[in-house]
Amino acid sequence: MATIHIGDPLRGKAVDLSHHLSDLARARVNSPLNKLFKYWEEPNLIIMAAGLPDPEYFPFSSVSSETLSFASLLEKNSMSRQHFPPENKTITICNETIATKDFNLTTALQYGPVTGLPQLIEFQTNLSAKVFQPAYDNFTTLIHTGNTDGWNRCVMALLNKGEGILVGEWTYPAALATATPLGVSPVPITIDGQGIRSDHLRQVLSGWDENARRMPRPHVMYIIPVGQNPSGATMGFERKKEIYAICVEFDIIIVEDDPYYFLQQGPYVPKTDRVEDQIEISANLEAYIANLVPSFLKIDYQGRVIRLDTFSKTVAPGSRLGWFTCNPMFAERLERFAEISTEGPSGFSQSLITKLLLTWKYEGYMKWVQALSQKYKAKRDFFLDCLADEFNFQIVSAGEGNTWAGSNIYLASEKLNLRDGVQTIEKVPVMRRTLFSFVPPSSGMFIWMRLHFDNHPAVGLHDVNSLELQLWELLAESGVLFAPGSIFSAGRESDKTEGYFRISFSQTKFQDMKTATSILAKVITDFFRNFV
Amino acid sequence: MATIHIGDPLRGKAVDLSHHLSDLARARVNSPLNKLFKYWEEPNLIIMAAGLPDPEYFPFSSVSSETLSFASLLEKNSMSRQHFPPENKTITICNETIATKDFNLTTALQYGPVTGLPQLIEFQTNLSAKVFQPAYDNFTTLIHTGNTDGWNRCVMALLNKGEGILVGEWTYPAALATATPLGVSPVPITIDGQGIRSDHLRQVLSGWDENARRMPRPHVMYIIPVGQNPSGATMGFERKKEIYAICVEFDIIIVEDDPYYFLQQGPYVPKTDRVEDQIEISANLEAYIANLVPSFLKIDYQGRVIRLDTFSKTVAPGSRLGWFTCNPMFAERLERFAEISTEGPSGFSQSLITKLLLTWKYEGYMKWVQALSQKYKAKRDFFLDCLADEFNFQIVSAGEGNTWAGSNIYLASEKLNLRDGVQTIEKVPVMRRTLFSFVPPSSGMFIWMRLHFDNHPAVGLHDVNSLELQLWELLAESGVLFAPGSIFSAGRESDKTEGYFRISFSQTKFQDMKTATSILAKVITDFFRNFV
Repeated sequence: MATIHIGDPLRGKAVDLSHHLSDLARARVNSPLNKLFKYWEEPNLIIMAAGLPDPEYFPFSSVSSETLSFASLLEKNSMSRQHFPPENKTITICNETIATKDFNLTTALQYGPVTGLPQLIEFQTNLSAKVFQPAYDNFTTLIHTGNTDGWNRCVMALLNKGEGILVGEWTYPAALATATPLGVSPVPITIDGQGIRSDHLRQVLSGWDENARRMPRPHVMYIIPVGQNPSGATMGFERKKEIYAICVEFDIIIVEDDPYYFLQQGPYVPKTDRVEDQIEISANLEAYIANLVPSFLKIDYQGRVIRLDTFSKTVAPGSRLGWFTCNPMFAERLERFAEISTEGPSGFSQSLITKLLLTWKYEGYMKWVQALSQKYKAKRDFFLDCLADEFNFQIVSAGEGNTWAGSNIYLASEKLNLRDGVQTIEKVPVMRRTLFSFVPPSSGMFIWMRLHFDNHPAVGLHDVNSLELQLWELLAESGVLFAPGSIFSAGRESDKTEGYFRISFSQTKFQDMKTATSILAKVITDFFRNFV
Repeated sequence: MATIHIGDPLRGKAVDLSHHLSDLARARVNSPLNKLFKYWEEPNLIIMAAGLPDPEYFPFSSVSSETLSFASLLEKNSMSRQHFPPENKTITICNETIATKDFNLTTALQYGPVTGLPQLIEFQTNLSAKVFQPAYDNFTTLIHTGNTDGWNRCVMALLNKGEGILVGEWTYPAALATATPLGVSPVPITIDGQGIRSDHLRQVLSGWDENARRMPRPHVMYIIPVGQNPSGATMGFERKKEIYAICVEFDIIIVEDDPYYFLQQGPYVPKTDRVEDQIEISANLEAYIANLVPSFLKIDYQGRVIRLDTFSKTVAPGSRLGWFTCNPMFAERLERFAEISTEGPSGFSQSLITKLLLTWKYEGYMKWVQALSQKYKAKRDFFLDCLADEFNFQIVSAGEGNTWAGSNIYLASEKLNLRDGVQTIEKVPVMRRTLFSFVPPSSGMFIWMRLHFDNHPAVGLHDVNSLELQLWELLAESGVLFAPGSIFSAGRESDKTEGYFRISFSQTKFQDMKTATSILAKVITDFFRNFV
């Protein structure tokens, strides 16, 4: 394996990262058919070497789509302060008989290199350069079929049986489901309001005892730094720098799974303090980008970050399309895994997304994601407003040692209902109990609701997971489905007094959010009261 | 793992196949999120449990395509004896706001179960039942993203490190590229004009010596039974029965990779003996199907066949869509692997292909593949006709022990060119040497050309692989690219006197075939002569 030389002249020396490759990644070789490829691009060569069907017999002669522009997102609720003319367009991709040579349906639907359409590669590479700004020049992008495929390939390429992955103590379950059957175990790190804690990370790594752990010190970290799933936490730049420095010190590869990056919404401001809900779209893209939290790539002077981007949250999950940004050595190994599994992503997806992006251009895509983040901001705000209508909130600053250290925590208790009159007044001490708490997320799709079972009368009688599931089922039977927190556990030590729900506000209609919060108020209040 | 009970009352007892599962397949569990799924279909439930983006923010409001029907294939060259009106149609898939509830773009582009759209499942299940006619009732189909993905999942689900796969001595290189880095080795079986030989298969299995081979007896066979890649061989029903009986006896799972199934073209008849090239489309589908060679599924009374079908050759490779047909236990395990890699196939592919199939219906698809096989038949015939124009053919019946036992072999030598006059007459003995030979394929896309280097003057001086590559490069430099046979070797014992080319006739234009064969004639003649 070739040594990779990356490093800026001021800070870094050349770093060899090839020892991170798994046995499987080392064993993967180019398809022997690649011998043929040196002739492939020769003009006038008659190619009878590959099992390609005749594109004249493809039953699709063109594909079209009615597409929306960012302005259509603003129109729907007239939330925009600015006026943008509607730019919805019909896009069409024709076969080669009537299309330009460089981008046509025939090419997209024929077998091709697993790296995908050149126009798509160009778009993703330009976006990575402008938005994520890698700290070294020869970064590479590589198409994949969504971040789950991307992470799966990272696991295959980096990890051997018996090794561990550093993860947040709560994390995306499918990420673990990929790794654990291969004999790769999660090593949970404590998280706070910004995600993975650098002090705990250093503590785990510096005190690593191979014999006690029966595992070598981990050399791979899986991290969702923006709108973390499930906690909703977003990591600031300073924390990222701390984490990166530790990863340099302990020689760790960072897999940055960042599907919610463009759903950065800014802090939640309670309704009473909020000025109008209006959407601003910045035409100054440098300013917009400068306001986003930087990617790990921006400080990655050693090439030890593999970033995963996806169109699942910004376009549609069914696109099954995204890309890696990483050093060329890792990219080359990750490419090999596509050749024996997915091959290139769907030609229909590639051609429709590529044509959409060519129509929007980089500027149009940047405006689209700005508008999109504002739409999700409006959903987040509305949902939290609904909670504020149903519960009494006390806002406190979380101190050291708290799960949400450094953040403002919203403590929710029963709302004084004047209609209850005297009867309620007697119950005030009970009502002042915190039922749940949360930190309003600044990005993504999730509220991570901590259930204060220490205030539940039956806390000594039932274990906390059982209380969590009881409440979860009661809510489901009453008409609202959250995700029980226990399914996101990466094997942290069991909490004695706290349960969790992950609540997605992303896809629920406004009226349904209103209904859901009022169901929650009734059910959770009963649940905490009826044991009194 | 549950025991699977399959078996017809006359022939079989219930068979437990669960011991074939790999360690990895046993370790794979359902995503913990599946706990949520019991509530998923509840009407009136407000779902805030999953990280779904809001489909109102998908930038595609409809997708359309201009599609062709089978009649358009016939029209192009007016090759049809029958008249069919053109039925080309524009298909459109709209979002849920204007579409019917059960099939719309919103559903296709949102996250969904990895099993795919219900209408597609129904189509593939109906097709498997009617065309492949599995020998047991509770067979299951499962969508995948193409046969390479399908085979990769089979390898993951069935094979542990250190095990072997039974394969033809020449086989699809990507199939081996999937397995070998995992420590799974090919066990080559001799092939003849029908593919894998049952006598050699039995010999290898019955004489298996674990210690000498350093490998347990293989329990998985990979086979491309129709238009085999690279040999073009198609296995008859009797041979399939022999192979299946051996697989029952030695407890072997058969992975039937059958992308060329619908490209069955019938025997080649030399141009001089051929009646007109005309296309007949049978409206009697039972009769059409009865004429196709049956799938291994038809005799699979024990559920030990995993069949892979794909739309890559019948629709377009860029579809990245196909399906497994197998027993429900294997299907369930194979499903788990999609959850941590590809997830469901592209929603654009699924919706466009599904809508096309709903438009064509089963009958329309069957007519399409009939017309398609006739189009490829015309290409095969034209290419072989071109060879006949350039070379002198002698047709002989291959005897026992010959690679192509049981088939008619075409031996090609230089054509007597009368313009050469007396000079040529003197060279007749040289010209009568066989340069190459082949068996005209009855299916698929490939001619497997055997190069008779025993007649090459330098055969003692160069090894055969080197002669093969020299000739291959000379042809490429002269303007025609074949695939060198050596890249398809599954590790058979090296042949002392024969080289091979795999020639694809599938995608080359007629005029280019003409040019290619005349280049071949010039280059190969020189190559065999110039050493004299």
